[in-house]
Amino acid sequence: MSTLAERIKNQDQRALAKAITMVDNDHPEKLSLLSEIATQKKHAHFIGLTGSPGAGKSSLVDRMITHIRSMDKTVAVIAVDPTSPFSGGALLGDRFRMHKHFADPGVFIRSMATRGSLGGLSRSTKDAIRVCDAYGFDYILIETVGVGQSELDIMKVADTTALVLTPNSGDVLQIFKAGIMEIADVFVINKADLPGVQKLKMQLKEFLHISDQKDWKPPMVETITTENKGIADVFRACENHRDFLNQTDAGKKKRKQQLTFEVYELIREELWKDVERFISRDPSKEIALQTENDPYQLAKQWLLEWREKGGGE
Amino acid sequence: MSTLAERIKNQDQRALAKAITMVDNDHPEKLSLLSEIATQKKHAHFIGLTGSPGAGKSSLVDRMITHIRSMDKTVAVIAVDPTSPFSGGALLGDRFRMHKHFADPGVFIRSMATRGSLGGLSRSTKDAIRVCDAYGFDYILIETVGVGQSELDIMKVADTTALVLTPNSGDVLQIFKAGIMEIADVFVINKADLPGVQKLKMQLKEFLHISDQKDWKPPMVETITTENKGIADVFRACENHRDFLNQTDAGKKKRKQQLTFEVYELIREELWKDVERFISRDPSKEIALQTENDPYQLAKQWLLEWREKGGGE
Repeated sequence: MSTLAERIKNQDQRALAKAITMVDNDHPEKLSLLSEIATQKKHAHFIGLTGSPGAGKSSLVDRMITHIRSMDKTVAVIAVDPTSPFSGGALLGDRFRMHKHFADPGVFIRSMATRGSLGGLSRSTKDAIRVCDAYGFDYILIETVGVGQSELDIMKVADTTALVLTPNSGDVLQIFKAGIMEIADVFVINKADLPGVQKLKMQLKEFLHISDQKDWKPPMVETITTENKGIADVFRACENHRDFLNQTDAGKKKRKQQLTFEVYELIREELWKDVERFISRDPSKEIALQTENDPYQLAKQWLLEWREKGGGE
Repeated sequence: MSTLAERIKNQDQRALAKAITMVDNDHPEKLSLLSEIATQKKHAHFIGLTGSPGAGKSSLVDRMITHIRSMDKTVAVIAVDPTSPFSGGALLGDRFRMHKHFADPGVFIRSMATRGSLGGLSRSTKDAIRVCDAYGFDYILIETVGVGQSELDIMKVADTTALVLTPNSGDVLQIFKAGIMEIADVFVINKADLPGVQKLKMQLKEFLHISDQKDWKPPMVETITTENKGIADVFRACENHRDFLNQTDAGKKKRKQQLTFEVYELIREELWKDVERFISRDPSKEIALQTENDPYQLAKQWLLEWREKGGGE
């Protein structure tokens, strides 16, 4: 019987779905699976799509899937849903628009929650992307819903990040302020049949001018997703950006940066799981949280105790 | 000579500013200062103000300052600015609107960056709030700019969270999806002279209906900040919420939850500082990040090394 990692490599979609559920549920075998899979890296093109709510990201993703399939290439879509801090569930779980692709074996679509209190892309989202890469998709699209940190996180996993904007939305300044402008490798101006396209382009040029100069000048691509216009241009812009990464130092630098982010995050999470286990085993800590009010003293003391007991081993 | 903590307790504004700079720069003495200050907790009313960009939060804060001062109470404002992941600086640093309060010793205003890759309220923002509390302000307003995670984080520090909305902004659904609706203790409907107030109220009622039922029913308060209308109502709604917290189990529960968040976060940060120091001391790790591509293996190995060397001591 072949291992799960082998089955994924052999493009077994059920194994793929199972592996993603494993990473999503933080299964004990998760890290060994991911480590096994890491050696199977196939270098899909990771394209992140972000932008303000209502800019038309989902519909762009839908069109891009069709475009990629028309070239006989395969594609996985990881859609990141915000999670309510109370309900803990993904509210946008079902994306009806995409259901027409579900029967196509060259397309894989999965929604992931932004679980956890830290916001942004969850660990499991990043792991799911790696599993999709090991499976051998040609393209992996990562779509984030526009609520902040996940936009900034997307550059930690995507090769190419496309920022979707619309004319006259008034978002540009907010996006700039939030630092999201600077992560864009491609600007997609969707709903380009609306007035204000020229003004938006001018604003973007101004912002690019005052931002850090990079070797790559993000192109501005106009689309009307409702009419299927401009999709091939978006795609070409993304491909050009990948060529740029492959042909210059920028790609090497980006990969190192992304690996560093990932290693650091993994270490933080593993350590924290240990400490949390240590804390939850001791009922007196629960009582301390009800009676004390100095978090600094508690943190110091518990950390010391944890270390004395051998750091969670 | 009195210590910095004592000087803060004695309402020395220069000591206050210095202490906040210390926490902001992660000064080595930070934790002992904060621990000393924690025993001086004076239980200000912590009011968080959040909402989408352009809803009028800053102008509401401005009016609330004037209102609080008119009752001869003191107030500190911590305004959270998003930081660009590249520039590292606070882009909204200067808030001209507020400069009229700068000469008033009963008002303290400080902008804090959302520094760090984790988004949301930075550690130093939370520490700064505690310093302001030890100083003895009656009210501490925490204003976040509308970019996602900081909205969700605000409930980890505020007693009362006010969500500022405007009629016909179309934000309600997005805010609901992002889970921000559920953190509101008070809904402020600003620009209430615009059409659509009744519709917004109906939408809010519907969302409240499908959200988790709580004992506290968030009131909806209409304001027109440009005309200084409704400010006393906002204030009264916040006070009512504080009374509710003090008179029921909800307050105790919230405080325990907030303390837990803080202790956990402090532990995570202290641990990570240790590990980061350990990694940065070893040049071979820098090389590994350039040559390897399995983050899981690297994380496992480095964590093991760190533990073998005594956990960063």
